[in-house]
Amino acid sequence: MEFDLIERIRRHTEVNRDDVVEGIGDDAAIVAVPSGRELAIAVDTLVEGVHFPAGTAPADIGWKALAVNLSDLAAMGATPAWALLALTTPDGDEAFFDGLARGFAELATPYRLALVGGDTTRGPLTVTVAVHGFTAPGEALLRSGARVGDVVMVTGTLGDAAAGLRCLAEPDASAYAALVERLNRPTPRVSAGQALRGIATACIDVSDGLVADLGHICAASGVGADIDAEMLPRSSALLTHFADADALDFALAGGDDYELCFTVPADRAGEVGATLARLGCGAARVGRIVEDAGVRVFDARGNLYEPARAGWNHFAA
Amino acid sequence: MEFDLIERIRRHTEVNRDDVVEGIGDDAAIVAVPSGRELAIAVDTLVEGVHFPAGTAPADIGWKALAVNLSDLAAMGATPAWALLALTTPDGDEAFFDGLARGFAELATPYRLALVGGDTTRGPLTVTVAVHGFTAPGEALLRSGARVGDVVMVTGTLGDAAAGLRCLAEPDASAYAALVERLNRPTPRVSAGQALRGIATACIDVSDGLVADLGHICAASGVGADIDAEMLPRSSALLTHFADADALDFALAGGDDYELCFTVPADRAGEVGATLARLGCGAARVGRIVEDAGVRVFDARGNLYEPARAGWNHFAA
Repeated sequence: MEFDLIERIRRHTEVNRDDVVEGIGDDAAIVAVPSGRELAIAVDTLVEGVHFPAGTAPADIGWKALAVNLSDLAAMGATPAWALLALTTPDGDEAFFDGLARGFAELATPYRLALVGGDTTRGPLTVTVAVHGFTAPGEALLRSGARVGDVVMVTGTLGDAAAGLRCLAEPDASAYAALVERLNRPTPRVSAGQALRGIATACIDVSDGLVADLGHICAASGVGADIDAEMLPRSSALLTHFADADALDFALAGGDDYELCFTVPADRAGEVGATLARLGCGAARVGRIVEDAGVRVFDARGNLYEPARAGWNHFAA
Repeated sequence: MEFDLIERIRRHTEVNRDDVVEGIGDDAAIVAVPSGRELAIAVDTLVEGVHFPAGTAPADIGWKALAVNLSDLAAMGATPAWALLALTTPDGDEAFFDGLARGFAELATPYRLALVGGDTTRGPLTVTVAVHGFTAPGEALLRSGARVGDVVMVTGTLGDAAAGLRCLAEPDASAYAALVERLNRPTPRVSAGQALRGIATACIDVSDGLVADLGHICAASGVGADIDAEMLPRSSALLTHFADADALDFALAGGDDYELCFTVPADRAGEVGATLARLGCGAARVGRIVEDAGVRVFDARGNLYEPARAGWNHFAA
């Protein structure tokens, strides 16, 4: 059974790459890293009822399982190459596998990412993906390089996914399709991450909420950060459907956005903003790196602001 | 929480390797494949109640989750290097994580395998490990190279793990400790796989049962195989506790043994047997590769024998 299911997924996701020596079908895949390149590797699991609600479309599950992993590669500035997929499901419904494979392939194909191996087992619905990408030695974007005086920037808009999750509880979620789409089909900022190589001093993807994830950069770099609440980029969909205070809390502490949060020397912020605008996602200055440990948020009058939620804990939030 | 748990596991499993540029703690790990080496990568998931019974000791879960993956590298003849660990658990009990990390480390350390990344999520208990190992170009042991006239061999003994699973249902399982140990702490045949490079024409690990897994070699190679039932290597523990017919069925169709099944040209079988005896696991000739597709089993009188169970389907068996 195992081989058949992975084979079914492979047919949807077929990509020919010279660096895949042996793909799906043996005990392990054999791949070749180009000379002069190092390998970035990451793994993330999505669990039904924790990372996506029961009833999520299979294609959305397949997309998101890959997206959260490509987002990790994006945060390193790496170029995606290969993935492994480990799928646990309570039943072997063909339509489910086809849908999941289709969603996975929709995102994988433009990156020429090859699915080279996998495992399918019976059990509660969870999807684990491991991704592999290339970086040049010394070029990977780490969390540890932020320096006092750097500007803190974020791509795209924040808070949409958390707002989309809230909207799913509404009687007619279709009115909030743009927000729900951001929850179910996050866009990993792969090209933005690549453009930040050699410029950003630190980078992370926003999976747990801006305050929590920027806190990881600060802890790894031995610095702190001050955020200006009114500078946070928020979508018109978010501001249309939610009161300003809710929209702010989603932007500060909502998870699942998969935007990049990064730091750059102050004199390069303008250049970075222009570059990422050309790549379609844009990047907004939201704060600055300071000496005092921790992340503080200030409102428009310069008063300390306490987000309602300290961090994203998925459905437990 | 995520980082703390993976950090806890890392402390148990710390291995210094020059080829780990960035280990646990960033969005992805950065590793370097030695020049002239290709990468073998595989992923396998264990689900509670499917691949191990509820109540299995955490250290045994940690060991087995790595063992089944190292067994995939062994079947390719690859040298283990790095692993990723994705753990989903219903609660965050420290003793559980320490136990799981200890079992994982007990197996990882002798191979100098480094845990370079991971993910912990809340949900039903499942453990997914992805492993990475090195092979030289053209040296990996594939399933597709078996030729008519080759001898079929297996390492170690077959059927113990399936017998051990049966014994768990007994009132006093301690009487069958040797068999239960084989179920909970399988030994991946890593050095045996490496020794077979350049000699074995095809190789697979026995996870689903000998007949099923040898069937994969036959299908990939476009050949068939005839097995002599009385040649199957069976442990004294198995033969002590089970009637001959049961022991035979366990050896033919029981899964979870993680021995290697491989094919070699007939004139090299003696040399291979001697080499693997020196490595401690030994290797027995159990049959031969023939033209007719499929796997047939013959009893001592040369009659076709039908195993009671067609293949291992974990607890559904």
